[in-house]
Amino acid sequence: METGKEISVFAPASVANVTCGFDILGFPLNGTGDKLWMKSIPEPVIKIKTIKGFDLPLDPEKNVVGVVIKKFMQDMHIKTGFELSIRKGVKPGSGMGSSAASAAAAAFAVNELTGKPLATKDLIKYAMEGEKLASGNAHADNVAPALLGNFILIRSYDPLDIIQLDAPEELYCTVVHPHIQVKTEDSRMILKKQIPLKKAIEQWGNVAGLITGILTSDYELIGRSMKDVIIEPVRSILIPKFDEVKSSVMKAGALGCGISGSGPSIFTFSQGEKNAAKVQRKMSHIYKTLGVDFDIYVSRINKQGTQVL
Amino acid sequence: METGKEISVFAPASVANVTCGFDILGFPLNGTGDKLWMKSIPEPVIKIKTIKGFDLPLDPEKNVVGVVIKKFMQDMHIKTGFELSIRKGVKPGSGMGSSAASAAAAAFAVNELTGKPLATKDLIKYAMEGEKLASGNAHADNVAPALLGNFILIRSYDPLDIIQLDAPEELYCTVVHPHIQVKTEDSRMILKKQIPLKKAIEQWGNVAGLITGILTSDYELIGRSMKDVIIEPVRSILIPKFDEVKSSVMKAGALGCGISGSGPSIFTFSQGEKNAAKVQRKMSHIYKTLGVDFDIYVSRINKQGTQVL
Repeated sequence: METGKEISVFAPASVANVTCGFDILGFPLNGTGDKLWMKSIPEPVIKIKTIKGFDLPLDPEKNVVGVVIKKFMQDMHIKTGFELSIRKGVKPGSGMGSSAASAAAAAFAVNELTGKPLATKDLIKYAMEGEKLASGNAHADNVAPALLGNFILIRSYDPLDIIQLDAPEELYCTVVHPHIQVKTEDSRMILKKQIPLKKAIEQWGNVAGLITGILTSDYELIGRSMKDVIIEPVRSILIPKFDEVKSSVMKAGALGCGISGSGPSIFTFSQGEKNAAKVQRKMSHIYKTLGVDFDIYVSRINKQGTQVL
Repeated sequence: METGKEISVFAPASVANVTCGFDILGFPLNGTGDKLWMKSIPEPVIKIKTIKGFDLPLDPEKNVVGVVIKKFMQDMHIKTGFELSIRKGVKPGSGMGSSAASAAAAAFAVNELTGKPLATKDLIKYAMEGEKLASGNAHADNVAPALLGNFILIRSYDPLDIIQLDAPEELYCTVVHPHIQVKTEDSRMILKKQIPLKKAIEQWGNVAGLITGILTSDYELIGRSMKDVIIEPVRSILIPKFDEVKSSVMKAGALGCGISGSGPSIFTFSQGEKNAAKVQRKMSHIYKTLGVDFDIYVSRINKQGTQVL
C-alpha cells in the first residue's frame, strides 16, 4: 500500500431517537461536527497526534477512532499505518452524536486513504465499533446518519438493514445543548424493560405517521406524529426544564420536540428557517433565565453526511 | 327529507393487523365484500328486510348496520327511516372484516340517501359504532380501509387520525380463510398486556420499514419488514397449520405472510399476479391435505373502497 497520502474529512453531529423513533431513526446536522486529518504512514500503527476541542484519550485503544481504524485495518488486511489529528466540534456527552462523528470521520478517512475498498454504507459497521467502545452498545442510529446524511432508518440490527429517507426541504432542526452531564449508560438503565402493549401500539402508530410525514413532506403530520409515550416520560426527568422548553417551543410554532439521543440536548423540528429561529430564541431564553450554560444550533437536515474537506 | 330514493352499494372485505402494523394498518380487497340495498321511507324506523349469505340478526338493535344508521340518524337529525337488504359476501368470524364491510356499506348508503351531508372520511366514526357492537371494540382498521380504499394508517385513536397510503401497483394479496372459528374477543384476550421494550423497538423498526416500502413501492423492503414479533407468536397458535402455511408460501416466493385481522384467515403479499397465484396453490394444497374447508382469494389492494353499484 502506497503511504504518505493525507486527507481531511468532516463528519456531522447527529440526532438519534427521533421522538417515537427510539433506536431506529436519526439524522445529521449541518455545520456542527468533527474534523479529522489523517495520513497513511509506513509503520503499521495508529498514532493520534492531537485532539483539539475536548479532552479525549490519545491512546488509540481507548479512543473511538483508534478502534474503528484498527478493525478496518484487520478486515482489509492493511499492513501500513495511519497518523491523525482531530478537531472535535461535538461535545462528548451532549446527546448529539459526539463519538459517532469521530467514528464516522475515522471510517470514512481510512476508507478514502486505502483506495475506497468499501461503499460508504458498508463503513457503518466499522463506525459502530466506535460506538461500542463509547457507550457499551454498538448502536447505528448516530453513525449511519453521520456517514450517509438524510434521515436514516435502522429497520433491523440482525441483519443490519439501513434505509435512507429523503428529508423534506423546509424541515429545520433547532438543538439546544444545556451544559449538564447525562451519561448514555445511565439514561439507558432507567428505562423500563417491560412496557404496556397499549403504549407500544400508540408508539408504532406515531412511528408510521412520522415516516409517512417525512416521505410525503407533510409537515403537519410530522408534527402530530412526534410523540414518544414510552422513553421521553422517563428520560425527560433527567433534563432540567424539559417540560417547560417543550411547551414553550410548541407555543412558538414548532412542529414537535424531543430528547436528542439520550440527552441532555433537546431538539425541535420547525417548518422553515424563521420558525426554527423563533424556537431558538425561546430555548435560549429559558436556559439563560435558569443560569445554565448552553449551546444552540439551527440547521436543515444534513443531506451529505461525511465529506472530504 | 324526500323519501322513496334507493341505492345499492358494495363494501369490500379487508385485512387489518398487517403483520407488524397491529391495530394501525389495514387494506381492502377487490371482488369480495358485502352488497347492501337501501331505501328511504317515511316512517322513522330501520327495517332490515333480508340478509342473504349468512345468518345474522334482522333486529336493527342487534345488527351492525342498524347501529350505524341509528347513530347517523341521531347526529344528522334525520326524521325519516330506511329499509334495507344485505347480501353478505364476507363470512362473520373470518378475520376479513365482515362486520366492517356491512358497517361501511350502511354508513355509505345512508349518507348517499340523505344528500351526502358528510365526506366519506367522516363516515368512519359511524361505521366504528358497528365494530363496537360486533367485537366490543370500536376499532377503525377494517372500516376505514373498507370505506376509503388503499392502505389506511390509523396513527391515533384520540383524536382519530386516519392517513391513506397509496398502494404499490404490483402488490397482490392472497388470503385463505380456513373454516374454523376464532372469536375476535378470544384472540384479543390471549395477548400479553406487557411486552419487552426490546421487542417493541424491533416491531416499530419493522413498521417504519413497511410504511417506507409501501410509499416507495419497494417490494423487497415490504417483504423484509413483514415481521410481527409480538402478536403473531401468540395468536398463530389458534390457527391450524399457520407455521406450515407461512414457511410454504415464503418458499414459493411470497414477500411476507401474516394473520388477517384476528384470524383465522392468513394473508400474504406477492409482487405480481403470477406469484400471488402460486401462493394460492400452496395454501390450497395445505388445507386440502388437512381436510379443512377453506375459501381463498387473490386480489390487488382495493383502491376505491365502498362504491355505489
